[in-house]
Amino acid sequence: MAGSSFGNIFRITTWGESHGKALGVLIDGCPAGLSLCVNDIQRYLDRRKPGTSSITTPRKEADEVQILSGVFEGRTTGTPISLMVANTSQISKDYSEIASYYRPGHADYTFDAKYGFRDYRGGGRSSGRETIGRVAAGAIACKILEQLGITVYAYTRSIGPIEVNMEQFDRGVRLTTATAMPDKDADEKAIAYLEEARKHNDSVGGCMECIVEGIPAGIGDPVFEKLDANLAKAIMSIGAVKAVEIGDGTLVSARYGSENNDAFCKNGDVTSKPTNHAGGILGGISDGDRIVVRAHVKPTPSIFSTQHTVNKQGEEIDIQIKGRHDPVIVPRAVVVMECMTALTVLDAMMLNMSAKMDAMIDFYN
Amino acid sequence: MAGSSFGNIFRITTWGESHGKALGVLIDGCPAGLSLCVNDIQRYLDRRKPGTSSITTPRKEADEVQILSGVFEGRTTGTPISLMVANTSQISKDYSEIASYYRPGHADYTFDAKYGFRDYRGGGRSSGRETIGRVAAGAIACKILEQLGITVYAYTRSIGPIEVNMEQFDRGVRLTTATAMPDKDADEKAIAYLEEARKHNDSVGGCMECIVEGIPAGIGDPVFEKLDANLAKAIMSIGAVKAVEIGDGTLVSARYGSENNDAFCKNGDVTSKPTNHAGGILGGISDGDRIVVRAHVKPTPSIFSTQHTVNKQGEEIDIQIKGRHDPVIVPRAVVVMECMTALTVLDAMMLNMSAKMDAMIDFYN
Amino acid sequence: MAGSSFGNIFRITTWGESHGKALGVLIDGCPAGLSLCVNDIQRYLDRRKPGTSSITTPRKEADEVQILSGVFEGRTTGTPISLMVANTSQISKDYSEIASYYRPGHADYTFDAKYGFRDYRGGGRSSGRETIGRVAAGAIACKILEQLGITVYAYTRSIGPIEVNMEQFDRGVRLTTATAMPDKDADEKAIAYLEEARKHNDSVGGCMECIVEGIPAGIGDPVFEKLDANLAKAIMSIGAVKAVEIGDGTLVSARYGSENNDAFCKNGDVTSKPTNHAGGILGGISDGDRIVVRAHVKPTPSIFSTQHTVNKQGEEIDIQIKGRHDPVIVPRAVVVMECMTALTVLDAMMLNMSAKMDAMIDFYN
Amino acid sequence: MAGSSFGNIFRITTWGESHGKALGVLIDGCPAGLSLCVNDIQRYLDRRKPGTSSITTPRKEADEVQILSGVFEGRTTGTPISLMVANTSQISKDYSEIASYYRPGHADYTFDAKYGFRDYRGGGRSSGRETIGRVAAGAIACKILEQLGITVYAYTRSIGPIEVNMEQFDRGVRLTTATAMPDKDADEKAIAYLEEARKHNDSVGGCMECIVEGIPAGIGDPVFEKLDANLAKAIMSIGAVKAVEIGDGTLVSARYGSENNDAFCKNGDVTSKPTNHAGGILGGISDGDRIVVRAHVKPTPSIFSTQHTVNKQGEEIDIQIKGRHDPVIVPRAVVVMECMTALTVLDAMMLNMSAKMDAMIDFYN
Repeated sequence: MAGSSFGNIFRITTWGESHGKALGVLIDGCPAGLSLCVNDIQRYLDRRKPGTSSITTPRKEADEVQILSGVFEGRTTGTPISLMVANTSQISKDYSEIASYYRPGHADYTFDAKYGFRDYRGGGRSSGRETIGRVAAGAIACKILEQLGITVYAYTRSIGPIEVNMEQFDRGVRLTTATAMPDKDADEKAIAYLEEARKHNDSVGGCMECIVEGIPAGIGDPVFEKLDANLAKAIMSIGAVKAVEIGDGTLVSARYGSENNDAFCKNGDVTSKPTNHAGGILGGISDGDRIVVRAHVKPTPSIFSTQHTVNKQGEEIDIQIKGRHDPVIVPRAVVVMECMTALTVLDAMMLNMSAKMDAMIDFYN
Repeated sequence: MAGSSFGNIFRITTWGESHGKALGVLIDGCPAGLSLCVNDIQRYLDRRKPGTSSITTPRKEADEVQILSGVFEGRTTGTPISLMVANTSQISKDYSEIASYYRPGHADYTFDAKYGFRDYRGGGRSSGRETIGRVAAGAIACKILEQLGITVYAYTRSIGPIEVNMEQFDRGVRLTTATAMPDKDADEKAIAYLEEARKHNDSVGGCMECIVEGIPAGIGDPVFEKLDANLAKAIMSIGAVKAVEIGDGTLVSARYGSENNDAFCKNGDVTSKPTNHAGGILGGISDGDRIVVRAHVKPTPSIFSTQHTVNKQGEEIDIQIKGRHDPVIVPRAVVVMECMTALTVLDAMMLNMSAKMDAMIDFYN
Repeated sequence: MAGSSFGNIFRITTWGESHGKALGVLIDGCPAGLSLCVNDIQRYLDRRKPGTSSITTPRKEADEVQILSGVFEGRTTGTPISLMVANTSQISKDYSEIASYYRPGHADYTFDAKYGFRDYRGGGRSSGRETIGRVAAGAIACKILEQLGITVYAYTRSIGPIEVNMEQFDRGVRLTTATAMPDKDADEKAIAYLEEARKHNDSVGGCMECIVEGIPAGIGDPVFEKLDANLAKAIMSIGAVKAVEIGDGTLVSARYGSENNDAFCKNGDVTSKPTNHAGGILGGISDGDRIVVRAHVKPTPSIFSTQHTVNKQGEEIDIQIKGRHDPVIVPRAVVVMECMTALTVLDAMMLNMSAKMDAMIDFYN
Repeated sequence: MAGSSFGNIFRITTWGESHGKALGVLIDGCPAGLSLCVNDIQRYLDRRKPGTSSITTPRKEADEVQILSGVFEGRTTGTPISLMVANTSQISKDYSEIASYYRPGHADYTFDAKYGFRDYRGGGRSSGRETIGRVAAGAIACKILEQLGITVYAYTRSIGPIEVNMEQFDRGVRLTTATAMPDKDADEKAIAYLEEARKHNDSVGGCMECIVEGIPAGIGDPVFEKLDANLAKAIMSIGAVKAVEIGDGTLVSARYGSENNDAFCKNGDVTSKPTNHAGGILGGISDGDRIVVRAHVKPTPSIFSTQHTVNKQGEEIDIQIKGRHDPVIVPRAVVVMECMTALTVLDAMMLNMSAKMDAMIDFYN
């Protein structure tokens, strides 16, 4: 209830602050018998770790994960998996100043309003480093989904005005570009755009998209636990996301029904749809098509130009933020979106196992 | 877990099908001592009930609510409040045909995939009538919020290409127009647009917005239970919603940080913001400003022109849907959005009461 | 959270007061495709309904259940099942007096302390009539468990000093005796004992036991969601229960390990135990043996002799309770215990379906 | 859902195995601003740590706790508190044998049945070392309760046939005796009894009791979230507990109502009860009196005499257990009971804060 847990059966709880001793995640409800090693998790963490390119913060963190429990002889045991990443490159003095005032676009003011005070070092709990736990847990969710024949992948769709050319989309490319765009041309242009913004002490926003392939029809629950509702929550819970779209998203509000409905057809034995405006979800339940989710991410609020704000004494002041910051959030958030999507889908698949009486009887016979 | 419950402390569970005996909602966790009568609820239900204008379905339902428990001598007792609305105008024969095939844009196929069969009459559980429970419960949430000094209101922002003129916005007007637009001009144009679409056996989409005024700073929990994350889930769970935006929403992805950050200033004793790009939420926690949420709603999938689909035998067929349908979903969904927003905010305020040690000590002294 | 819900996947929420319009239960998470009719539920309600023998309250209630949703063409649809029982024999004037004072052994004082006031008619929400919802929902759980090869049955083990002769135990008999004892001799003696108590304006306590047969090994989760922990909660939540035992229960505290350990042996292919001190649960997980739970129930607190108490004005007074009351709670609570046990076991079986990776892969292939 | 979490608002999740790298607990929902240091927690852990007397296992563990997050400048921040205790004295070779068979009275067989395999070293997750997390979290709950004027303490009431003389009860003494009995005479006798049992390669059971003093009336929710129901779950979830009693517990089943009812009286301004058969809870809600809970604990299942069992190949065999084991569980479990009780009471108090409308209005004004 207190905010740091996600999921019902595959349930994770993240912990840790930007400049504390460590960050981590606890995963409860992972099925027993999954082969799991550090590298299964590390390769996801490496995709979000800072300092890997010119367009991320210069803070250097190895972000090496340790498995502290729940795995025995290379397999999960069904008991809680505790994962921890030590913080090693805290330079807290960068932040001593922000203890005294509220940075625009950050959670400084709201944390103080809620809790009376806050760990201000590097944003404390509201830092992007909080997502380490999401990614570590999501890596496991992705591995389980793979074994169920389901692939989840996210990528950067746009940075500022630079959009991916969807006709030249190559999924593998996103793992090789600094922007996480699946298109080298767009990547180059976006980097140039970012450098220009950085020169002006500014930051930029962007859009990311996540695709789920191979999910069977019938996943998700009606009414409040709709698959798209849970995806919306999962993705909106990522810091800096301000809008979530499913399928054609905002476009539908200007459409006619005759344009927007997806017909059904048969593809061999399989019921499918020649179009996918719905983004793979009807009535909150997967229809067997690709699930498509999009998130719009605001520009990094930490910018180096002068800003107006208020300090703890209630005086208006002008500030100039120091520290190490990404000029754009999206490239490193892409893997977070992938992980949150995987966690949502996996949990829905577990909850779905008792949906039919005859399947339950079969299971126990 | 099973999908029909929403909220943690103020927890509602809705039930009922379009053509069953009745629909309703159970509210657990309502504080004791709230003055409550049928009319407090009925006036919200009247805003969503069908048959009130030329642009809603001709199905006539009085949608009269009964309070079956939890209220004694005009006040809530703290125990579950059971609310029920009888169905009176079921014409199930309209729907006998749809038992055999899957309507495009509807949940027919996905319900069958999940459960093996479905109550097909009028869409059964996936009908818009399911929202009766949401509205009945939300009416109570709104009444409680009012007593805490908080106002929640939603309105139609656009229908097809017709948008509200935000400079002529008058909140009261939305309760008097058929479209729920707060602008009589736009309302007239939208009705004309709808009539035109209906002539072509078509339907249209739209956009609705909800505002929360008077909410204190500090509401919402960090990480996964962010106020915006829970709003996204709440609103995306309304049938036909395909995108949710907070504050400036999708616009942020093309912005610079210097444009998007809201400065802080002092307004007398109160910390506030001259701009509100953030939509009243920073780091998932309310900042004391107006909360702004927007939802994009797809066109009604039930259209009267011929559509291509698949039947239960797995054959491709052409169908023509019968029955009684709204040509646009938004006007009747506005009150549902208002209610889902109120439920989300109220639950967050209840969860917030133990956020600070000294407030807890005060409470129990 | 608010108290009236039980279960995680098979989740029920009860509602209603003793002298309100109706009582009921909402069941969310019932698998689709279960054949279900009113009589499946009614025959359980008939076992708890009042007025069936000389040793129950003379209040006459037919307690006829209606199915309002979630069942279509004789089968559950997977959506919420709403069940309602109308109150028909309220004689509220019997209770007008108790509005003003706190009955010893009842929840009058504690409800007022918590909520500020209460529906005092017949105990309101704290009346035994609240268990109607438990029994109606439990009847469905029992039916599902039967289809999984699992039988749950409870019986009266003792009333005052009169105990069942376990060597003459016949399970069917408990459905035919007024006391719910599975032994006609003990039943007769207990009735005589009750009549004697009643003559002295007194009431008596008793003990009930519930057995689960046919449950596979491996059900229940470690640590906090142990099967015995959840059974303890389920049974202790029944009004008037003051102790819960699993297997040999309180006896174990005076035992040696060599006496208390159950050896394992092979029974054909099956691993089993020649003794069952453990009551079928080891480490919180079923071991395949019979599960044995016992509950100790206090005497009905409503007695007709003079009692000392306090009124709402804070004065000490002597009172004499009126109204219609059972002289012993156990006989009608036995079916409630059976139902709470079934609900607990069923939910644990649903949660267990994702315990093993290979079973999950099989399920989705 | 997966079993290792407890509580709704003050929510803890424990992790770790007996012979893994570490054990720990994550606490989410702790109010901000509580002064907290390592020693607040360590002094509770020291009460459960092994090797402190002749009647505990000779395994030596310092059980030193680290605070990894959630505390800043000596106060809790409202974000998750991650606590970790490293394992240092694992001698896993002692356990290599038990990989191949099922120890009577242990969870070896049931874990295999559920998960397909298990971390067999020292019992893995089903080891008593799992309670480290409960105690570390409970220490914080106790500190918060103290600030609310509430004291929780547990003690050993009996070991085998040796019972505490309740007339010589001195609460402080329990912290100084090896048995955790509050009576030095009984302590001596119990130690002698234990030595005798150990000579015969046997173990013994016992009974522990927990008292809550200073809790206001009105805490706990009706129906399923009764305070006694949640205490029953909390206490039954402690390994080896086989029965839980509230107040007079099992005695009530042989009582008359006239004996068992507690009258109400006035104690100055306060409504109280001259007797406390109810154990401080009526209708699941605290009545302002002392809460009394008792638990019956089975003898340590690890005994050194020969036992009959089954191995993984399905053969019956005779075994002799090695390793380091306590001859009685109760003395070290007492602090676990104290902590589980505190966690239950604190969570109920947090949930109670929105019970009354006027209190909620006051809170937000």
